[in-house]
Amino acid sequence: MDRSLAWIPRAEFARVLEEVVDPHERALAFGAMTRINTLYMIARAGSGHIGSSFSAADVVGWLLLEELDRPFEADGDVYFSSKGHDAPGLYAAMIALGHLDEDLLHRLRRIDGLPGHPDVGTPGMPFNTGSLGMGISKAKGLILAHRLAGRTSRVVVMTGDGELQEGQNWEALPSAARYGMGELTVVVDHNGLQSDTFVTDVSDLGDLAGKFTAAGWGVLRCDGHTPKQLEQAFALRAAEHPDRPVVIIADTVKGGGCPTFAATSMAPGEWRYRHHSGAPSPQDHDSAHRELLDTADGILRGRGLQPLRPVVSTVDLPVKPSGVRLPELYGRLLTEAAHEDPRIVALDGDLVLDTGLIPFREAHPDRFVECGIAEQDMVSTAGGLAAGGLRPFVHSFSCFLHARPNEHIYNNATEGRPVVYVGSLAGLLPAGPGHSHQAVRDVSALSAVPGLTILEPSHPAQLAAALSHCRATSDSVYLRLSSQPVPEELAVLPPAPLVVGRGQVLRTGGRAVAFGAGPVVLAQLLGAADLLAAQDIELTVVDLPWHNRIDPAWLGELLTGIGHVFVVEHQYGSGGQADLIARHLLETGTGDGISFRGIGLTEVPRCGTDAEVLAAHGMDAAHLAREIGADVLGRTLTTQPTGDASWKLSATN
Amino acid sequence: MDRSLAWIPRAEFARVLEEVVDPHERALAFGAMTRINTLYMIARAGSGHIGSSFSAADVVGWLLLEELDRPFEADGDVYFSSKGHDAPGLYAAMIALGHLDEDLLHRLRRIDGLPGHPDVGTPGMPFNTGSLGMGISKAKGLILAHRLAGRTSRVVVMTGDGELQEGQNWEALPSAARYGMGELTVVVDHNGLQSDTFVTDVSDLGDLAGKFTAAGWGVLRCDGHTPKQLEQAFALRAAEHPDRPVVIIADTVKGGGCPTFAATSMAPGEWRYRHHSGAPSPQDHDSAHRELLDTADGILRGRGLQPLRPVVSTVDLPVKPSGVRLPELYGRLLTEAAHEDPRIVALDGDLVLDTGLIPFREAHPDRFVECGIAEQDMVSTAGGLAAGGLRPFVHSFSCFLHARPNEHIYNNATEGRPVVYVGSLAGLLPAGPGHSHQAVRDVSALSAVPGLTILEPSHPAQLAAALSHCRATSDSVYLRLSSQPVPEELAVLPPAPLVVGRGQVLRTGGRAVAFGAGPVVLAQLLGAADLLAAQDIELTVVDLPWHNRIDPAWLGELLTGIGHVFVVEHQYGSGGQADLIARHLLETGTGDGISFRGIGLTEVPRCGTDAEVLAAHGMDAAHLAREIGADVLGRTLTTQPTGDASWKLSATN
Repeated sequence: MDRSLAWIPRAEFARVLEEVVDPHERALAFGAMTRINTLYMIARAGSGHIGSSFSAADVVGWLLLEELDRPFEADGDVYFSSKGHDAPGLYAAMIALGHLDEDLLHRLRRIDGLPGHPDVGTPGMPFNTGSLGMGISKAKGLILAHRLAGRTSRVVVMTGDGELQEGQNWEALPSAARYGMGELTVVVDHNGLQSDTFVTDVSDLGDLAGKFTAAGWGVLRCDGHTPKQLEQAFALRAAEHPDRPVVIIADTVKGGGCPTFAATSMAPGEWRYRHHSGAPSPQDHDSAHRELLDTADGILRGRGLQPLRPVVSTVDLPVKPSGVRLPELYGRLLTEAAHEDPRIVALDGDLVLDTGLIPFREAHPDRFVECGIAEQDMVSTAGGLAAGGLRPFVHSFSCFLHARPNEHIYNNATEGRPVVYVGSLAGLLPAGPGHSHQAVRDVSALSAVPGLTILEPSHPAQLAAALSHCRATSDSVYLRLSSQPVPEELAVLPPAPLVVGRGQVLRTGGRAVAFGAGPVVLAQLLGAADLLAAQDIELTVVDLPWHNRIDPAWLGELLTGIGHVFVVEHQYGSGGQADLIARHLLETGTGDGISFRGIGLTEVPRCGTDAEVLAAHGMDAAHLAREIGADVLGRTLTTQPTGDASWKLSATN
Repeated sequence: MDRSLAWIPRAEFARVLEEVVDPHERALAFGAMTRINTLYMIARAGSGHIGSSFSAADVVGWLLLEELDRPFEADGDVYFSSKGHDAPGLYAAMIALGHLDEDLLHRLRRIDGLPGHPDVGTPGMPFNTGSLGMGISKAKGLILAHRLAGRTSRVVVMTGDGELQEGQNWEALPSAARYGMGELTVVVDHNGLQSDTFVTDVSDLGDLAGKFTAAGWGVLRCDGHTPKQLEQAFALRAAEHPDRPVVIIADTVKGGGCPTFAATSMAPGEWRYRHHSGAPSPQDHDSAHRELLDTADGILRGRGLQPLRPVVSTVDLPVKPSGVRLPELYGRLLTEAAHEDPRIVALDGDLVLDTGLIPFREAHPDRFVECGIAEQDMVSTAGGLAAGGLRPFVHSFSCFLHARPNEHIYNNATEGRPVVYVGSLAGLLPAGPGHSHQAVRDVSALSAVPGLTILEPSHPAQLAAALSHCRATSDSVYLRLSSQPVPEELAVLPPAPLVVGRGQVLRTGGRAVAFGAGPVVLAQLLGAADLLAAQDIELTVVDLPWHNRIDPAWLGELLTGIGHVFVVEHQYGSGGQADLIARHLLETGTGDGISFRGIGLTEVPRCGTDAEVLAAHGMDAAHLAREIGADVLGRTLTTQPTGDASWKLSATN
């Protein structure tokens, strides 16, 4: 979809920074201008975090323009964002000031561009963030290293307020005080909203200042959109607390800086903030762009300066792929199930939209537990609910759910009471948010938990069967849900019995068989099968939704007469289906003479468009067809099946 | 070693509870008596946590005797310990009151007895604890379940003060306040000491009352050894805060109740409390027993009652096995290495003794970072140190290190800077502490972390080589250290080159080969080889210290002409060496005709003596010999090699 989008070139930033002499006005103009470019980047990428970027923009601007000493230089002061999803705003500011190539403005969430969350591969980023709550700890380590090197640079860390629900933050505070870390300043972007809704409604921070004070920190508070107040706060920080860590609670407005996105524009009673992530609508984009331009131009005109001269680019905007998405359907099914089963309780980790739980929350408020961004607390709370005879369903993104409360899931498992863990956003895609959000190690990290079955449905009918299984089994279940649309060929599949360890043959043919799970892997495998068919190579494609269970009899029958076995996984190649099947074949002696190949991730997943990243990791239909074809023929294909498998990719592009 | 130990039978408890009419005096007598039995249980078991049990004893006694309504009954008030290592004290009180069989007094840390930390398999235990910081969350879940069932039982949770360093506690507080959980009372056993030393020196809790207040909790404080004060605190709790959660900070003395173990007996300037875990010396046992008996008898005599009539049992006390232990040696080697390499920093999670770090702490105080019981903060701090160009070595027990900061290890790995994670107490043994402390899922949970090598040395020379590897590699390393003594046959092995993915043949022979890592697995395998040799079955035993790397050329050569491959792992059978080797054999087609068998854990590990637990899981030499022999001969052995492999077990009994 072609569309014209406007952005501010670096030369205009240089002009404004030179011509606006009052530092406070300059910072405000800069903030409006970086917001314009943030908006451009996110609109162009088709996704990104506007609310958080805008909320933090004036703090970031003030820090980079006035407060920090040579930020991003080798011996300069250090700034980074722990919350991480304000990365587009930070990028925009860094590009404006020449800390990053200007061309990167056009490459947010593109491969070799700027990742959705900060990554050390980008110049000036000291840490990978996006997994919340790690920033203060990392800053402490960096400061200890600086001290050993005789360096006294300041380190400023930006956190969200919702982020402070993570317990790690509170672990981190005492030793910073003990070490007298005058180098360390934490700025809380205190906008009162977390991903979906108000912090107070999710897990109220209580007396935030009191908590930092009790931990031995200095506490300051200011308006985070008023440069003069930011200036004063940092001056007080230095003057009053030279030898201890300080938190500056910066009161901000999520989406602040323009009425279109500002949380202050929410209707009375409206509970959900709509601009946390995703792409702005064309209307919202245009009105916000105008508002921001007006703000900047107002400052310039007030000083008798020329208004901004944005550059207009015609951009081929990504189209959000259509199709049924499993988390949404899941949420409805769970809501229905809870009507008949009073044991069902749902726990959410501040992702009520993305985990499909809004209907549940509305239908069963007494059995909906909003835990906030505190996955450990959530999983242990689920253990308590299970001890009370209930059947808890625990929800978060897969990337967080398997890892942050990893010990807690194991602890629950050792108690032998069934708990269902539901991870959405599972797998390699979407690839835009980057590796903090790509769950490609969840299967591995949980596969050995005793009594925990890992189940990944690929289509609606299978999801319904999977939910029935979760409700009936005495095992615990990790239900792995891709958030990508289900391709049409899978979406129309009828209900079929779901038997532990058994899969469903989606396409039959030949002496080669490929296993996979979930809509994305299977879409690519079906696409590969089509490409191979055009080369007269037949491939049986099996949907195996069980990641750590295999039915020996079923597998034995399926592999009778088979010469080649492939297992494709969107995860690191350890502890998943490839290992499971390989070991089974070897231990039962049924693998003799079979050529076996597991195709999984070997590197940290890339950030980019879905198609870019699938291709980069050799996981798209074309690559899979090439690899499988070469193995089956025992040689490289002379005619490479590089053809367009876009019919399969269309739903996941 | 035979020894006479005295304990108080239940009939004596019944007499004292009936005859001492003043509830406060009664509670004090009860506390002294349960301490006598706690001491007996721990002395008999050869390990256990005296300091923590004694510290909490008067609180537990008051709760069970006076405060709680029908504790441990189906609809009664609920009490459990989140810190968990005070389990012996709780068991003693429960046995005294008839909540547990009296016979269990003699079966602490024995199989089918009372586990080292609480487990739901024991009547009256609602949760598995021992992994710190989960208790408040679990209590919240239970209370929510109670509410849905219309039940209003109180739930009282005991936490340690050191335990409050875990961030999860602070995650857990806000929603308890939001839900107005008047049912929930947390008692902090505030003895000022964590496992090794003073809480203030490790990670000071700061203004503890202020932290709870800031989270919306009611706060009360009392002396935890004075029943009258406990009574008042609980009365205030009910009267002043009926509708919100309350913390009662109970000031206690670690090891309190008798001068021998009381932390108040520590010499001025002494930094390490010596009675956190382990067995008391005979002298300490006897003097503490006398002191406690005097306390109880003093109360009885003051009321004109008969003194206590303990029962004396002659007990065969376990002997602590001798031999070099790798963590201790590791600590010395790291300390030496840090003299020549200024990049080395060591981080500790409140286990400075068990991780061997005392010499490092003394030699390099500027490069020693004590992080307390806050593994997530520790691992991210290490990430910060690595970003600053240092080479951090991160230490904790394996059971905690792989799981609690699982996401943080991955996050560090995605930054590509080398960090060394050193987990002691790795593997199935010691089996006394129970499954919260048995690290049998660490390999699986970390095997897929990109750029992280899992390395487990089995003997001193290999440990030295492993440390050199950790210092030199650009990978991160998880160094898995068994804390069990190294058997003599391994301890004397000379230095040998350590090559990634390659092992060391310890014994050569025949067409069967068995792989294993670490001193315990290899000791059992060598024992099995001896037993098999007596049956004319030859077994090649290979020490493969790499859990997630294999050298194909080396393996190929080693397996030439081999008919049977066994891989023995003290972990759940997923994501470790068995999977790695199986998949390699199958993918390379070199497994054809080879009989393969992985022998790993399938169930949550049992608690008991080391010999009991090895046998229960089929992991001792005799079981391994039987399994391997049967596979090699293709039939069950007619003469079972049940012979005594105790020469191998001697070091791990």
